[in-house]
Amino acid sequence: MKINENYLRLEESYLFASIAHKLAAWKEANPRREVIRLGIGDVTLPLVPAVTEAMHKAVDEMGRQETFHGYGPEQGYSFLREAVCGYYAARGTIIGEDEIFVSDGAKSDLGNILDVLSLQNTVLIPDPVYPVYVDTNVMAGRDIRYLSANRENGFLPLPDQAPRADIIYLCSPNNPTGAAYSREALRRWVAYAQEHGALILYDAAYEAFVCEEALARSIYEIDGARECAIEFCSLSKTAGFTGTRCGYTVVPKSLSFGGHGLHALWLRRQTTKFNGVPYIVQRGAQAVFSPEGQRQTRANLDYYRGNAALLAGALQARGVWYTGGKNSPYIWMKCPDGMSSWEFFDYLLERAGIVGTPGSGFGPGGEGYFRLTAFGDRGRTEKAAGLLKEIL
Amino acid sequence: MKINENYLRLEESYLFASIAHKLAAWKEANPRREVIRLGIGDVTLPLVPAVTEAMHKAVDEMGRQETFHGYGPEQGYSFLREAVCGYYAARGTIIGEDEIFVSDGAKSDLGNILDVLSLQNTVLIPDPVYPVYVDTNVMAGRDIRYLSANRENGFLPLPDQAPRADIIYLCSPNNPTGAAYSREALRRWVAYAQEHGALILYDAAYEAFVCEEALARSIYEIDGARECAIEFCSLSKTAGFTGTRCGYTVVPKSLSFGGHGLHALWLRRQTTKFNGVPYIVQRGAQAVFSPEGQRQTRANLDYYRGNAALLAGALQARGVWYTGGKNSPYIWMKCPDGMSSWEFFDYLLERAGIVGTPGSGFGPGGEGYFRLTAFGDRGRTEKAAGLLKEIL
Repeated sequence: MKINENYLRLEESYLFASIAHKLAAWKEANPRREVIRLGIGDVTLPLVPAVTEAMHKAVDEMGRQETFHGYGPEQGYSFLREAVCGYYAARGTIIGEDEIFVSDGAKSDLGNILDVLSLQNTVLIPDPVYPVYVDTNVMAGRDIRYLSANRENGFLPLPDQAPRADIIYLCSPNNPTGAAYSREALRRWVAYAQEHGALILYDAAYEAFVCEEALARSIYEIDGARECAIEFCSLSKTAGFTGTRCGYTVVPKSLSFGGHGLHALWLRRQTTKFNGVPYIVQRGAQAVFSPEGQRQTRANLDYYRGNAALLAGALQARGVWYTGGKNSPYIWMKCPDGMSSWEFFDYLLERAGIVGTPGSGFGPGGEGYFRLTAFGDRGRTEKAAGLLKEIL
Repeated sequence: MKINENYLRLEESYLFASIAHKLAAWKEANPRREVIRLGIGDVTLPLVPAVTEAMHKAVDEMGRQETFHGYGPEQGYSFLREAVCGYYAARGTIIGEDEIFVSDGAKSDLGNILDVLSLQNTVLIPDPVYPVYVDTNVMAGRDIRYLSANRENGFLPLPDQAPRADIIYLCSPNNPTGAAYSREALRRWVAYAQEHGALILYDAAYEAFVCEEALARSIYEIDGARECAIEFCSLSKTAGFTGTRCGYTVVPKSLSFGGHGLHALWLRRQTTKFNGVPYIVQRGAQAVFSPEGQRQTRANLDYYRGNAALLAGALQARGVWYTGGKNSPYIWMKCPDGMSSWEFFDYLLERAGIVGTPGSGFGPGGEGYFRLTAFGDRGRTEKAAGLLKEIL
C-alpha cells in the first residue's frame, strides 16, 4: 500500500501555529496587557434571530415521527435552492434551481470540485491568495502557475499578465487582500477563459460585502460566464455560519468541456461522496434569505463594515498604503518602514497588543504586507484604531 | 480544460431510479392498493429526546454572543471525540481521542480517504456490496479486483479466496447482505493485511446492530488492527442521523505505510478540504453517547430489530434461505423459484404491494437475491410479514 506522495510536497503551514506560539510567549512576558485579535477571519456576532428560530423549529420537526427528515437530496432541499435563486434574482442574475448545489461550505467544494477535472490540467493561482487553492492542487499533483497580485495592479491582476493555464482561480472580494474586481475586469477574464477554453473557479465567499455599484457580486453578472465559470459561495461570513456550515456552489448546465457537461459530473461526484447538509442547517440557511433574515444579517455586515472603516481611517490618517476594507472585511496594508510581514507582526504585538496576520503567510507575493480583519467587536476595534494611529 | 475521464467509465446506477419508475407505473395501475416500502435503507423513527434537547440548547448558544461558536476544529470538538472514546472504551476498545475524526457521515469519509492513497494501489472489493466503494475507485482510476461473497461462504468471504490487492474493503455488518464477521474471521483478515502490507478500510456503519457475542463491533477488537485498518462509523442508523449528518472515522496513529503515518496525511486532508461538522450537530451527537441518549437510541434499535425478526420469521416459516436480520437491519434473501432479482421485485410488488431492493443492484454477485430493510414502521412491517407468508 502506497500513500499519495504528492502530500509530501505540501509545505507545512506554520502560519497560525507560529502566530499562536509568538502570542503565547508574549502573553507570558506581558501578563497584564490586553490582546486585540484582528488575525483570524472568523466572525464574532451570533446567528441572527431569524436563523435560530428556523433551526429551533427544524429541531422540533426532527423530533416527531410525522415531520422527521431522513436522507435528503445530496444537492440540497428545493426550499433552500429556491431561496438562493431568489437571492440571485433580486440582483438580476438568473440561475436555475437545479444549477445550485448546497454545500457544507465553500472550502469543501473548492477542494472537491477538482475530483471531476483531469490531473493533466495546468492551474493558474494568484499570489498572494487563500492557501487552499494551492494545497488542493499540490495534493493532486497538478502543475501550478502563479499570477502576481501586487501593488502595481492593485492586487487585481488581469489576464494579459497571466501565464497560460486550464483552470483559473479568482477570489473577489479577495482573501487576503480585500481587493474586488469590477465588472469590466471580470469581462476580460471571462473573454480570456472563453478564448482559451479555460475554466474559472470563482470564489465569491465574500460577495455580501460588496457595496460599490461597479463591482461584481457574482461572475454570472458577466455575459458568457455561464459557459466558463463555477461560482463558490458561503454563508460563513454573510450570515455568521463559520460554525454552522452551509454554502452553495453554482454549476451552470451550459458549462461543457470536450462535450462533457460539468453539471452531470459534479452531481455524480456529490451523490457518490456526499450525503447533503443537515436538514436543520438548511432550514437555518433558508431563513437567511427571508426578508427578516436579510434585514438582520445586513445589520451584522454593516457592523463589520463599520469596524473596517475604523481601521481604514487610522491607516489613512497615517498615510499607510492599504487596499480592501470597503467591499471586504479584510484590510491589506503595506508594512511601514520597509518592515517584513513578520517584523511588523512583532512590532504591532509589542507596541499595541494587536494580533494580525503576516501577509507572507498567503504566498511569497504577500511579503511586506499585513492583513487586519473587521470581524472583531466594536469596542476593541475602536481601541485598535486608536493604537494604530499612535504607533504608525 | 479536460475533465476527469474516469467519470465516463462509471456505470450509471439506475437502481433506485428504476425502482421509482416501476413503482409509479404500478401505483397508476393500482390506485387503491397500499404500498409497503422496505427498499431504501433510511430510518423512520425521529431523533430521540436527548438529542433534540441538546440541539435546542446548542441553537440557543449560537444565538448569543457570549456562547457563540465560530470555526471549530476540523477534526471535531473534544467533547464529542471524548464521548466516542468512551463508547469504545465501554466495550473494552481503547482509542485515543486524537485518533477520532468527526465526519459528516461514513459515505463522505469512505470516498475522501482515497485522496491520501496512491492511485497505483490495487483495490479489493467484495461483490455484492455498497456501490460507493466501487464508484469512488473508478473515479480515481484505480485497478479493482472483486471478491465473491456468496451463499457458500455465507456472504462473508475470507482472505484465502482473495486476489492480491493493496486496499481491502470490509463492511460488517454488511450492506446489503446483513452478514457480520466473527472476531475469528476478522483475525484472519488482519493477519493477511499485515502479511501483505495492505490497508483495510473497515465500514462499521451498522455496528450498533450487532448483538451476538462472537461478532466484532469494531476491527480494533483484533490485535494488530491498529497497524493495518481505518474504521468508518456513522450515527445514521445508530441514532437516526441520516438527515442530521454525523459520523466518525478512526485513524490510528500507529498506522504507517512506507514510513508515512496515515493519521498526519488525513489530518492534512481534512484541515485543507473540510471545515468540520456544525457545532449544533456535534452537540446532538454527543448526547447520543450520554446514558440517557444510549438508553433512548437502544430502544429504537430494538424496535428495528423487532421488525427484522418479523420479516425473518416469515422467510423461515416458508423455508426461504436468507442471511442478516439478526445483527443487522437488512435481510438478504434468495429469490424463490430461481427468479432473478428484478423478476422477484415485480412479483413482490404485484402480489403484495411490497417494495424491496433487487440484489443485482449491488453488483453481479447479488443477482438472484433481494434486500428487505427493517427500518419501516411496525404496523406495515407486520403486514408485510403476513403477506410474505401468503405469497412465498
